[in-house]
Amino acid sequence: MINVVLIGAGNVATHLFKGFSRTEKVSVVQWFNRNLEAINQHKNSVEITDNLNDLKEADVYILAVSDDAIAELSTQLPFENRLVVHTSGCVNVHNLDKKHKRGVLYPLQTFSKDAKVDFAHVPICIETIDKKSYPLLKELALSLGSPTKRVNSNQRRVLHLAAVFVNNFTNQLFRIGHEITESEGTEFDLLKPLIMETAKKVQDMSPYMAQTGPAKRDDQKTINEHLKLLDNEHHKTIYELLTASIQHTHGRKKL
Amino acid sequence: MINVVLIGAGNVATHLFKGFSRTEKVSVVQWFNRNLEAINQHKNSVEITDNLNDLKEADVYILAVSDDAIAELSTQLPFENRLVVHTSGCVNVHNLDKKHKRGVLYPLQTFSKDAKVDFAHVPICIETIDKKSYPLLKELALSLGSPTKRVNSNQRRVLHLAAVFVNNFTNQLFRIGHEITESEGTEFDLLKPLIMETAKKVQDMSPYMAQTGPAKRDDQKTINEHLKLLDNEHHKTIYELLTASIQHTHGRKKL
Repeated sequence: MINVVLIGAGNVATHLFKGFSRTEKVSVVQWFNRNLEAINQHKNSVEITDNLNDLKEADVYILAVSDDAIAELSTQLPFENRLVVHTSGCVNVHNLDKKHKRGVLYPLQTFSKDAKVDFAHVPICIETIDKKSYPLLKELALSLGSPTKRVNSNQRRVLHLAAVFVNNFTNQLFRIGHEITESEGTEFDLLKPLIMETAKKVQDMSPYMAQTGPAKRDDQKTINEHLKLLDNEHHKTIYELLTASIQHTHGRKKL
Repeated sequence: MINVVLIGAGNVATHLFKGFSRTEKVSVVQWFNRNLEAINQHKNSVEITDNLNDLKEADVYILAVSDDAIAELSTQLPFENRLVVHTSGCVNVHNLDKKHKRGVLYPLQTFSKDAKVDFAHVPICIETIDKKSYPLLKELALSLGSPTKRVNSNQRRVLHLAAVFVNNFTNQLFRIGHEITESEGTEFDLLKPLIMETAKKVQDMSPYMAQTGPAKRDDQKTINEHLKLLDNEHHKTIYELLTASIQHTHGRKKL
């Protein structure tokens, strides 16, 4: 049984709490948040506190708080030489106070407040400074049913960066698709199956092999028609840049 | 029973043939291709021909050929006043020879040669010049199990343009994610669940509501770290442009 103290009340903390509650291999012995109200609804299933001096002893303290709060909070923890991890994709593990054994549990997924999370689809990237801490963190991630991957700091930062491309930027392309369709009185809904298929395709095939469309075919006629159709200058710039990017990837043109 | 003559041998033609073969409401009475070899494997289930003069009478002729071939091929068809449709997202319906009754059946989906197609996830956009042709085309699309939508030429062109954003451009972002991760010795595979979740999220939520990440939060520290991490100038340009796009959408900045 791994004893965990959870710190923070955001999406990651909440989903971790629910995930740990489903397994017998982990016990959340305490949940801390500065603002008790945010976790008050869970007080019947876990001990809650807003006082760092009341923190219980545990095998691991998980700081699932905003990036900016990690360093200071780790310094404020009134103990040392215990395992303290954060869950951020881009904060250096050395930002945790060096009085602790330090590590990172980075869940590589997007969490929504209300959506249920299936941890089988949440790869957890593990980093530790002290090698001895690794098996416990791995066991913790496996107890959620997550795939795990040991990474170093640079790999984690790179994964976080790549996640911005495939998640935030992709979502912005969906937003532009939304704007374009609705502005002509047609429906974004018609694009939804295509969006799913685009994501599904690269589960078994490299994005390189999965590519299709006018940029890949170097179909300048269609490209020109699309550019004429776009009346938003900003959308036009994005169209040109990503078209050039595809043409470069597929050997059509130099950038 | 709707009698169909299929023309062309690409992905769309092949998947339409398979789709029509599964329903009793449609009979593919003939399949034409200039190069017989491409459809020869189907000769036991359908009459095949490479001679336009041998074309049989049918309720509808479906030109599932490359965009550039549509106009000329429609002129070469040795009959008139019959319903002839193409399947392109961006070719004007008036490019079909005006001796025919003209229409479009545009399947808004990406097709791979080998992947099985579930037409329940292929919205078919229908356009006709002659209103009387619409019910037959709708019945044809419904027989495949597809959702249908009547569109005009401009809406179809706009859907095709939006599809480039949500499919081709999105896939290019996956490609960049692939390049970034592999260049640091980590694995693109770790991003696959996130890619699926990103697509799933917008099935029930607007892309606007689904957005997260440093650009939306206006987290300039993380944005700067990411830019420092990117050593490919081209990737950097894409990062900056899409970050600005998100900031604009979410009211953070003017473009």
